[in-house]
Amino acid sequence: MATQSPLLLALDLTGTFAFGLNGALTAVRAVQLDVVGVVALGMITALGGGVIRDVIIGSFPPATFVDWRYFALASVGGLLAFAFSRFLDRLEGPITVLDAIGLSTFAVIGASKALTHGLGIGPALALGVVTGVGGGTIRDILIGRIPSVLRSDLYAIPALVAAGITVATTQLDVYGLPAALGAAAVCFTIRMLGVHLELNAPGPPWRGPGTDPPEPDPADRH
Amino acid sequence: MATQSPLLLALDLTGTFAFGLNGALTAVRAVQLDVVGVVALGMITALGGGVIRDVIIGSFPPATFVDWRYFALASVGGLLAFAFSRFLDRLEGPITVLDAIGLSTFAVIGASKALTHGLGIGPALALGVVTGVGGGTIRDILIGRIPSVLRSDLYAIPALVAAGITVATTQLDVYGLPAALGAAAVCFTIRMLGVHLELNAPGPPWRGPGTDPPEPDPADRH
Amino acid sequence: MATQSPLLLALDLTGTFAFGLNGALTAVRAVQLDVVGVVALGMITALGGGVIRDVIIGSFPPATFVDWRYFALASVGGLLAFAFSRFLDRLEGPITVLDAIGLSTFAVIGASKALTHGLGIGPALALGVVTGVGGGTIRDILIGRIPSVLRSDLYAIPALVAAGITVATTQLDVYGLPAALGAAAVCFTIRMLGVHLELNAPGPPWRGPGTDPPEPDPADRH
Repeated sequence: MATQSPLLLALDLTGTFAFGLNGALTAVRAVQLDVVGVVALGMITALGGGVIRDVIIGSFPPATFVDWRYFALASVGGLLAFAFSRFLDRLEGPITVLDAIGLSTFAVIGASKALTHGLGIGPALALGVVTGVGGGTIRDILIGRIPSVLRSDLYAIPALVAAGITVATTQLDVYGLPAALGAAAVCFTIRMLGVHLELNAPGPPWRGPGTDPPEPDPADRH
Repeated sequence: MATQSPLLLALDLTGTFAFGLNGALTAVRAVQLDVVGVVALGMITALGGGVIRDVIIGSFPPATFVDWRYFALASVGGLLAFAFSRFLDRLEGPITVLDAIGLSTFAVIGASKALTHGLGIGPALALGVVTGVGGGTIRDILIGRIPSVLRSDLYAIPALVAAGITVATTQLDVYGLPAALGAAAVCFTIRMLGVHLELNAPGPPWRGPGTDPPEPDPADRH
Repeated sequence: MATQSPLLLALDLTGTFAFGLNGALTAVRAVQLDVVGVVALGMITALGGGVIRDVIIGSFPPATFVDWRYFALASVGGLLAFAFSRFLDRLEGPITVLDAIGLSTFAVIGASKALTHGLGIGPALALGVVTGVGGGTIRDILIGRIPSVLRSDLYAIPALVAAGITVATTQLDVYGLPAALGAAAVCFTIRMLGVHLELNAPGPPWRGPGTDPPEPDPADRH
């Protein structure tokens, strides 16, 4: 199975670390938190998506609670963010790249794991996206923000594309390490293009009277 | 079992579609969202209550992730809301009726499923209500609103009544399709009376100093 | 096993009642809610942490849904808070003590149960804390507040210490009723010292430009 490939595992662990770091940095910028809060939010960002996926497909305990490396990397990321937020704030570029690696890997592994557990196409797509964006969504709820994934940036869409390629190649019986890496690479490319070109997903044609324009949020970073 | 009746299934699917449509419309009115956000919130509104129920009773994967019709109807409802929000905004009446059908059916099926899985009276009542109101509650959290079910309208109470009738008839060994439809009809009637007479559940006699009066929320619609 | 000790059970039930009462009181003070909302938030505060723990370790149905006394005490606490909020508001001292008993017991039982289900040290620590603070966190999210556990007071840290003692004594094979009570007593002492000396966990050295100072929240009480 592709999930056991050392390369995918390395990408998955890299993404976990990046989500822990980036999730905690977002939290530090957004609200006044103590050390427990910062590290907890980093860990929730890093592990939350996979936990939701495993709980919904009924795989207990969640994978990230069994392999200690996920827990360790997520908490180290959160602690680094707590200690070095001033310095890390200047490293937005590299952190965004690491974060996109996490998003891509999580979406592919999430969709693949859902299929392995017998779910259909729709749920597999949904769980691929949820694995990628779920942790950041819980973090945003906890710090009192409308999850940025719902309203700005190309973040959920590249995850959906990666999940779609994973599902399609599995249906065609050609899913394996090359397909997984290809799906992740497409997601990564769309995400990075979105960051550089500041692309957004389309909004609805009409939103009702008296709705406010979206406020730009200085803390926004997935 | 009453849940397998074609009539209850039809009501359940109708409710799923209505929750998807109505949940997405509420989201469109409340915050600036992109297409992914609107459809995701519609699906979460439609499927969220049943997922929480199934996760708590340990029924994996959740029913709505197994039968593709739930996923399909929820996402179609969300997509219609995204595309035609301007037009649908004028259809508040019919949509409220469909939504009340969903609430009623979900509460009955939720309480019945909890009893079937061996839970007691209290948990079955709670899970009946959660099945009916859980999806809308998650949606409200995600769009940064205090869940309207907690503070206004008769919404949770009719669901609680429906769950109560379901539990009582099951205890008396007379639960079946007629009892299920009767419980749903009572819930539907209370809910529609509440809408037309603008009834609210009673508030606490005293709330402490310095609390604000409740703000009317133009986006409020369950 | 220590969890079956009558003393630990009594502390656990006391904590459940206190969390239901205190959780509902916090909700009453913070937002305009109807009776369903107040009781629901009390029950969520009392039962939420244990439900998250049991769902993550895959123990279904959650313990608090099987033993009716948890449900009963949590809802009675919520109902008392609804009916007597004016009077109870003056009893902050005793309620804080009961709440600290709940926090301490929940953290010890949570960590111990995670270990019993085969989880490692990190996850057991995390689930001990989550059992103690999870219910209040969900309540705060539902009433639109940033969870106070993330940003103020010594609340998560004593829970972490109690979970740590539980894990350490289990590793050393000396865990039992004395160790459990000792761990709970240490947590209780730190928590009460924190309340009386108004101690807070340390914040990050730097938080980024343009962040607001923390607003004191009159409704803040865990």
